[in-house]
Amino acid sequence: LYGHPVVATGVCHTDWEYLFETGKGMKFRPFPLVLGHEAAGIVESTGPEVTRFSPGDKVIPLFLPYCGECERCLSPKTNHCKKNWTNMQAGVLADGTSRISCKGQQVYQFLGVSSFSQYTVVPDTSVAKIRSDAPLDKVCLLGCGVSTGYGAAINAGKVEKDSSCAVFGLGAVGLAAVMGCKVAMARRIIGVDINPDKFEKARQFGATDCINPRDYIKPIQEVVVEKTGGGVDYALECVGSPAIMNAAFESTRDAWGTCVIAGWTETEVMSISVEKLLMGRTLKGTYFGGWKSVKDVPKLVDDYMNHKLKLDEFITEKLPLVQINKAFDLLKSGKSIRTVVSLQDS
Amino acid sequence: LYGHPVVATGVCHTDWEYLFETGKGMKFRPFPLVLGHEAAGIVESTGPEVTRFSPGDKVIPLFLPYCGECERCLSPKTNHCKKNWTNMQAGVLADGTSRISCKGQQVYQFLGVSSFSQYTVVPDTSVAKIRSDAPLDKVCLLGCGVSTGYGAAINAGKVEKDSSCAVFGLGAVGLAAVMGCKVAMARRIIGVDINPDKFEKARQFGATDCINPRDYIKPIQEVVVEKTGGGVDYALECVGSPAIMNAAFESTRDAWGTCVIAGWTETEVMSISVEKLLMGRTLKGTYFGGWKSVKDVPKLVDDYMNHKLKLDEFITEKLPLVQINKAFDLLKSGKSIRTVVSLQDS
Repeated sequence: LYGHPVVATGVCHTDWEYLFETGKGMKFRPFPLVLGHEAAGIVESTGPEVTRFSPGDKVIPLFLPYCGECERCLSPKTNHCKKNWTNMQAGVLADGTSRISCKGQQVYQFLGVSSFSQYTVVPDTSVAKIRSDAPLDKVCLLGCGVSTGYGAAINAGKVEKDSSCAVFGLGAVGLAAVMGCKVAMARRIIGVDINPDKFEKARQFGATDCINPRDYIKPIQEVVVEKTGGGVDYALECVGSPAIMNAAFESTRDAWGTCVIAGWTETEVMSISVEKLLMGRTLKGTYFGGWKSVKDVPKLVDDYMNHKLKLDEFITEKLPLVQINKAFDLLKSGKSIRTVVSLQDS
Repeated sequence: LYGHPVVATGVCHTDWEYLFETGKGMKFRPFPLVLGHEAAGIVESTGPEVTRFSPGDKVIPLFLPYCGECERCLSPKTNHCKKNWTNMQAGVLADGTSRISCKGQQVYQFLGVSSFSQYTVVPDTSVAKIRSDAPLDKVCLLGCGVSTGYGAAINAGKVEKDSSCAVFGLGAVGLAAVMGCKVAMARRIIGVDINPDKFEKARQFGATDCINPRDYIKPIQEVVVEKTGGGVDYALECVGSPAIMNAAFESTRDAWGTCVIAGWTETEVMSISVEKLLMGRTLKGTYFGGWKSVKDVPKLVDDYMNHKLKLDEFITEKLPLVQINKAFDLLKSGKSIRTVVSLQDS
């Protein structure tokens, strides 16, 4: 365990959902809690058994652990390490408490991170040490949304050169998925969103076409199938809605179409046509884009520093912590992609 | 096009379903039609442009074509060749007619095969030439069920050595899937069926455990998850029921579980928990076990002749064509795995 000051944090849709949807679209979480899970900071102190970190190290805290020792960490097939999973989901550390309290009352930690706070304490298996020249107010985005969407294309979809792709939802996760398709050298990348204000940015990230389901009477999957003469090779759902997941699935091509679900929902069920599955489609889910968190996030930081991966372009606002509610408003209104909240000058 | 006498044909559950479920669980097909699609025979004559077959060749007619020339045939990713697909589904040949009639009325062809008949005519892209020493009353089973189940494990699931598997449904497709898991050297193979009479045969094919959902109060997926400490690496659905598909999906392990759907339904929808997908599962469909029909079926015949693949053990009855209704009765009562119908001695 170690403590570190949080320098900057993104505001993700999942934060909003846990605040307003917990017990409804989301499973129950204990309140009160400190939200925020997409951050970067600097180590202030470490516990006696921590050897891989020192005060002053730049770090990204992670909601997905990587212990490096379990069957899953040793397998190339998954990034789902379960270290401290149960306590993390319950909002506490391994000893059953969090290090956050208010007027003597226990305040819970969100997904093991809680970055809407100047300080947090996390296990050393849930934090990535990153290079000292990385700008924390940019690389914080690698703590969730950008890594998730980018990896959905690269790791889960394994998008191939010259393929066709459709990305459903053009928020941070979707734009990162577009970027992943572009890096994988897809020939065609169709961005789908009901908010056409996102289209210019999507083109900047590599989308070749942008379409708005509200511009069509027929279901959007039929539009995609027609535009591509049979469907896309890869569809990436970056919204978290079962109806859109089905549309994404049905947008893929017979014979080898792959649909990757990167959008988040914890309680819902999605329905698909069995015949479409039997005609050769694959449906898969991804969590944190398939990246092995502690091990891979430093490489993603390198990719950003080497201009392979964009981050600055996701950031539409910068606000101090006292304006966190404004960040939520911008998110819900569709006016922001990512607001980066500074914890240092509030 | 060429004509060949059918020597032997299996009786598959799909034949029964088209007969009694068309327009309900199955899409509408034109009647009257001659059923049967799992057969072997001998070429009697060929059309003027046919070069790859000669009278006397032993063959297996195929409901899935392989033209060898299209984008799909040239891709290693799929076996879904669409040559003559639309007419085949409509029960006719490329010229819009079938070669079957009764008292002047057009009789339709089933899936481009119609093997419940002494003679049939099929395109040369829908027939596999096989070795001359192959016993037709055995290798006919490679025309559908055995290839489908075996390939579901080998090609679609890509079952790995030392893995754990669960096979739902222990008819011919399911037993062939068990055999595929065994050939792939899975460590544990759990057979699931509500008919315990199938268990002895399943063990013969390689099942290490057999369980009957009716023996448990809790859902069968929970039983599988408990028995395997978290779920199987691979689940293979060989029934064609959306509820069982979901049970198979939920029987797989977090992080890398793969569920392959080999059972057939054309009109139904399956529902799955999005969270279970996001936790690292993959769901995929397979058609004819992923085999490239014309190209791969002769190799499966070789595998049978070389004792790598069992066929004799699937055959529980042999009947002449006049007793075809008895074959259906045995199938529906669960008393047969495969009845092979002889077209030569009826």
